[in-house]
Amino acid sequence: MQTLHVELGERRYPIFIGSHLNPQQLLEPYIHGRQVMVVTNTTVQPLYLSHYVEAIEELGKQVAVCVLPDGEKYKNIEHLNLIFNALLEAGFNRDCTVLALGGGVIGDMAGFASACFQRGVYFIQVPTTLLSQVDSSVGGKTGINHPLGKNMIGAFQQPQVVLADMAQLKTLPARELSAGLAEVIKYALLGDEDFLIWLETNIEGLVARDFELLAEAVYRSCAHKARIVANDEKEQGERALLNLGHTFGHAIESYLGYGIWLHGEAVATGMVMAADLSYRMGWISQNDVERTKNIIQRAQLPVACPKIPLDEFLAYMSHDKKVLNGQLRLVLLKQLGQAIITKDFDVELMKQAILANQV
Amino acid sequence: MQTLHVELGERRYPIFIGSHLNPQQLLEPYIHGRQVMVVTNTTVQPLYLSHYVEAIEELGKQVAVCVLPDGEKYKNIEHLNLIFNALLEAGFNRDCTVLALGGGVIGDMAGFASACFQRGVYFIQVPTTLLSQVDSSVGGKTGINHPLGKNMIGAFQQPQVVLADMAQLKTLPARELSAGLAEVIKYALLGDEDFLIWLETNIEGLVARDFELLAEAVYRSCAHKARIVANDEKEQGERALLNLGHTFGHAIESYLGYGIWLHGEAVATGMVMAADLSYRMGWISQNDVERTKNIIQRAQLPVACPKIPLDEFLAYMSHDKKVLNGQLRLVLLKQLGQAIITKDFDVELMKQAILANQV
Repeated sequence: MQTLHVELGERRYPIFIGSHLNPQQLLEPYIHGRQVMVVTNTTVQPLYLSHYVEAIEELGKQVAVCVLPDGEKYKNIEHLNLIFNALLEAGFNRDCTVLALGGGVIGDMAGFASACFQRGVYFIQVPTTLLSQVDSSVGGKTGINHPLGKNMIGAFQQPQVVLADMAQLKTLPARELSAGLAEVIKYALLGDEDFLIWLETNIEGLVARDFELLAEAVYRSCAHKARIVANDEKEQGERALLNLGHTFGHAIESYLGYGIWLHGEAVATGMVMAADLSYRMGWISQNDVERTKNIIQRAQLPVACPKIPLDEFLAYMSHDKKVLNGQLRLVLLKQLGQAIITKDFDVELMKQAILANQV
Repeated sequence: MQTLHVELGERRYPIFIGSHLNPQQLLEPYIHGRQVMVVTNTTVQPLYLSHYVEAIEELGKQVAVCVLPDGEKYKNIEHLNLIFNALLEAGFNRDCTVLALGGGVIGDMAGFASACFQRGVYFIQVPTTLLSQVDSSVGGKTGINHPLGKNMIGAFQQPQVVLADMAQLKTLPARELSAGLAEVIKYALLGDEDFLIWLETNIEGLVARDFELLAEAVYRSCAHKARIVANDEKEQGERALLNLGHTFGHAIESYLGYGIWLHGEAVATGMVMAADLSYRMGWISQNDVERTKNIIQRAQLPVACPKIPLDEFLAYMSHDKKVLNGQLRLVLLKQLGQAIITKDFDVELMKQAILANQV
């Protein structure tokens, strides 16, 4: 097992990364109060819920459970309210802990509920997808969607501890594993060429779910994100680097309709477009673009999206939240392993990069 | 005009207290971004909304308005969502300011919305009731009710600035003015005998809405609360002193049904019960109890509640949120102007104090 400490101002918390972790032993120091609410979904419930409930009950805690339907479309205010209902019906007071057992949606909702319940209680994350292990484990972003925009309502809420157990990835659908690898590749591309080289060596092992390789990839991804977030907890600047591929990806997801492509799939193709534009700007070589496409393809991810009318693609891009005061800013690559945030790019070259990566 | 600076860790903010304040001049340095959402209610809207909208538009800002129905019963998740709808329909981004124009309910809801919208935007308070001027101006508590409990969902959100304009109190119903005075009296009783003596001299002038006296009362109340909150922002200890009269009052409000008695009225009678119990414990004199009743009565507030069966009264008391892990803790008076938080009181004497102050 590896332990990564996320350093955040007044607080630090550990991420325990390994396989077949012992939740009873690892969670004990981090559960506050006598009451623990486990929030999970209908997919994870039959697989892992009893394992955690039993471990926490062994610690002498009162455990209650809130099971939500599985899916991004339930990440709304109505289903958030179900968590509040569960907390109040179980008689929980302000000295309690909310544990998220699931992927990113469960982590976002349970985390936001813990930030708001009684104006803030304790929060623990047990991410059960690769994406949530490398993305939601670090950064404290929680929240829900609104019909007029994704993640529009939320809070920054840091967990007490994160347990990332690779053994739980054995039940993850292959498409979702690959979608998680898209974010792993993102960390390499935006800030760590050594990590990219490591991925180029080990990508097939990752796709085959080698627990040791997965643990290493999660550790390096979280460490990378933690460095960026520690410098910029509230997303004023550097943290926007984490959006590499996301503005293009957002347009793909929006046009296709959410849920058709997974977020990681859209980001994968978005990263190809960002790399291609960076090449057209003269910043990286054609070979760098090929390396980018190659690692994405070997992770079983799409390197091109279906044909989308250019005007619609551009309209969706500018609706992205990362647009600051109407000025489109993109995360592009100055070299492989070094991203920048810039609004100084050629719009015509951007259009070419979009059109060149559609099928 | 007087200015009180609330000192809070990384942040400080001013409360401007006076009459006929100039919002354009006073708000300008504290509005962030180009977009301002003014949240108000149907009662305040015809009285003061245009005054503020025009002042902010004069500053070259884009102003949008969200008008909620007036009343505590609308302090729920459905009406909170109306604020999010208004923000998103107006196209507001994360660099905006939410201004609460109204009493405690509007302040709580607009403040909580500002804490959650895009994971936190800027917040300004213009409290238009005496209660909200002396209570919600300091402390950063925001939130909404849940069918299973009041203020169960919320956030700590500090404003950039507070404008407390006494001239706006001229339209406040007399009962609400008195309810605000209950909280003013509370600050004197719990921590400042000099202030109590000042109130004993000036209470009729306050009831008659002398702006200068009101401003002085608001200043001293906010200063008192600010000292306590600065020591205990997240309500771990000393801040509970502010609940003087509230556990008894909560039982009265709950039994009568919310909205029958105003919160301040219930707190007033609750403070009489707390003083009476403190006398029965031998801590304060009978004359101290009479002074307490006297100042409350002169503020046009009730010193006794209707007959409530004792078992029901006690049951409602122990449902109060201030009960920590099932142990009833009360705020009582060691002397006039010096409150303590204690669970070491005689339950039989408490019953006597409750029964002795019913009519």
